[in-house]
Amino acid sequence: MTSATYDVIGVGNAIVDVLSPTEDDFLTRHGLDKGMMTLIDTDQAAALYDAMGPGIEVSGGSAANTLAGIASFGGNGAYLGKVRNDTLGGVFSHDIRAIGVDYRTPPATDGATTARCLIFVTPDAQRTMQTYLGISVELGPDDIDEGAIRDSQITYLEGYLFDPPAAKKAFVKAAEIAHAAGRKVALTLSDPFCVDRHRAEFMHLISGHVDIVFANEAETKSLFEVDNFDTALQQIRGHCEIAALTRSEKGAVIVAGDDIHVVDAAPVDRVIDTTGAGDLFAAGFLYGLTNGRTLVDCGRIGGLAAAEIIGHYGARPEMSLAKLLADSGI
Amino acid sequence: MTSATYDVIGVGNAIVDVLSPTEDDFLTRHGLDKGMMTLIDTDQAAALYDAMGPGIEVSGGSAANTLAGIASFGGNGAYLGKVRNDTLGGVFSHDIRAIGVDYRTPPATDGATTARCLIFVTPDAQRTMQTYLGISVELGPDDIDEGAIRDSQITYLEGYLFDPPAAKKAFVKAAEIAHAAGRKVALTLSDPFCVDRHRAEFMHLISGHVDIVFANEAETKSLFEVDNFDTALQQIRGHCEIAALTRSEKGAVIVAGDDIHVVDAAPVDRVIDTTGAGDLFAAGFLYGLTNGRTLVDCGRIGGLAAAEIIGHYGARPEMSLAKLLADSGI
Repeated sequence: MTSATYDVIGVGNAIVDVLSPTEDDFLTRHGLDKGMMTLIDTDQAAALYDAMGPGIEVSGGSAANTLAGIASFGGNGAYLGKVRNDTLGGVFSHDIRAIGVDYRTPPATDGATTARCLIFVTPDAQRTMQTYLGISVELGPDDIDEGAIRDSQITYLEGYLFDPPAAKKAFVKAAEIAHAAGRKVALTLSDPFCVDRHRAEFMHLISGHVDIVFANEAETKSLFEVDNFDTALQQIRGHCEIAALTRSEKGAVIVAGDDIHVVDAAPVDRVIDTTGAGDLFAAGFLYGLTNGRTLVDCGRIGGLAAAEIIGHYGARPEMSLAKLLADSGI
Repeated sequence: MTSATYDVIGVGNAIVDVLSPTEDDFLTRHGLDKGMMTLIDTDQAAALYDAMGPGIEVSGGSAANTLAGIASFGGNGAYLGKVRNDTLGGVFSHDIRAIGVDYRTPPATDGATTARCLIFVTPDAQRTMQTYLGISVELGPDDIDEGAIRDSQITYLEGYLFDPPAAKKAFVKAAEIAHAAGRKVALTLSDPFCVDRHRAEFMHLISGHVDIVFANEAETKSLFEVDNFDTALQQIRGHCEIAALTRSEKGAVIVAGDDIHVVDAAPVDRVIDTTGAGDLFAAGFLYGLTNGRTLVDCGRIGGLAAAEIIGHYGARPEMSLAKLLADSGI
């Protein structure tokens, strides 16, 4: 691989999260799908926010969380995703730049407001997400920064991007630019319902455009519409170079050609909020990969970052992942 | 005491906090007074926010935190303090109402933006606060809701209110209404520098208008300009009915007439961020007091709430204080 300015460039929905501890019966009363991400409109967002308990606002967005994690490890990252020039857009822009990511998309000066995700965290630390996408859906092919993509070892795309139609085109354009420049393309499947909504296109893309796939157990099974994880694991094998499959407290399985590596989860004192666990696993994995580590070490570094994020509310690291990694001996 | 709709009504600066983990050398480089609250203007706030690391936004404001704590215990509370009808004003209003406080001040439709406090949290869990007061300084005598004050067992005022001149008048008006209705008035000294700025007026007020004083060790010593805590403790005795003096990990001392009660601090697993420790001590103490508990129990309930708040970022409780109290056996 020729040298690159960025280890990873992320493309995704730029979102500010509003997190609130919630009892399970709140989810039932409001008909929310536990553990899932659901898209909501402005009116639904307003009504649900009224009903929600006191919140904590933290920058989020799946790929943005991953890039924040890579920067916290000391990696060089860039990000593409759209906010408005409003208060939450200012918060998002500040946070991602402050952690050291080169955020390249200028804020929109008109249109919908910055995206917001209401996250209900139940006592079992599960998160249930209700997303108002706002201006983030307007990310389109014109926002794909060709030079930056060419200059990144890996272009990392979030599956959620498949929900807005313009972003889907942006996604394909980014993948084509990356491959033409001899770079790699990574994709996270994001959510089993997201896989359901776009299964055929995901399969087509993974086979044709994607080198590295991140998925959890439910997403992997949903992709192949099977009930058994091992069956799904065998099926994904032929479709991409590397599949990093996460299984919560059971750790991760890394599939690469004929090799299968099983990696244990990192120990955690107390699980508070699982928001961002998958995003931060991807951060550690990609940081390892772009720094020449073995696939097993990549999985272990991913587990380390995921363990940090689930110990507190919010999907952005609260301590230096570079320091955590140095102390870990991995 | 005749019955009242509210246990406590709080009057204070309505603020949204932006918290960020920071190394000590950042404070040195930017000339920030560690552990203190400093007022800054719009330009200083913008420059400091640019330099600040990634943040977490949580509703704050000293008296507002206290009222949120009282509501979390199951107490009835009301709050007076001013926000703008902007995004952060919406966040503040949502959060305080969502926890069950009757927030009675309508948002301003013009003027400065909602107040914001940049809080730098060092690895020793100390917080250093830089506050842009924005619209909150416009709280004046006209915002004092006479009916609500008359209908509250205790009117609780934050010392920080002494910084904006209009609020100082509001403060005196609130105290006079409360006393005329046969109610009690409580005051927290807020910050040793705040005491420095307004020492003579604080002394005058405590002697004439205040029944219950909350102060930490530094504030108590600053009030009487002495180096020794025991000297200060003896001096405050004659000036008010109850003085609840907090001493961090050394617990609290409650002074009431001839009685002095020493209360141990509640045990804490891990201290992450001391923002709001004093505010939540006051919450537990006032909840106990308005529910007929002994002064020692009031101090212990205060310690319980303070212990919850210092275990995570932000000055609003993340778990039900009513449940914590029930489980504690106090």
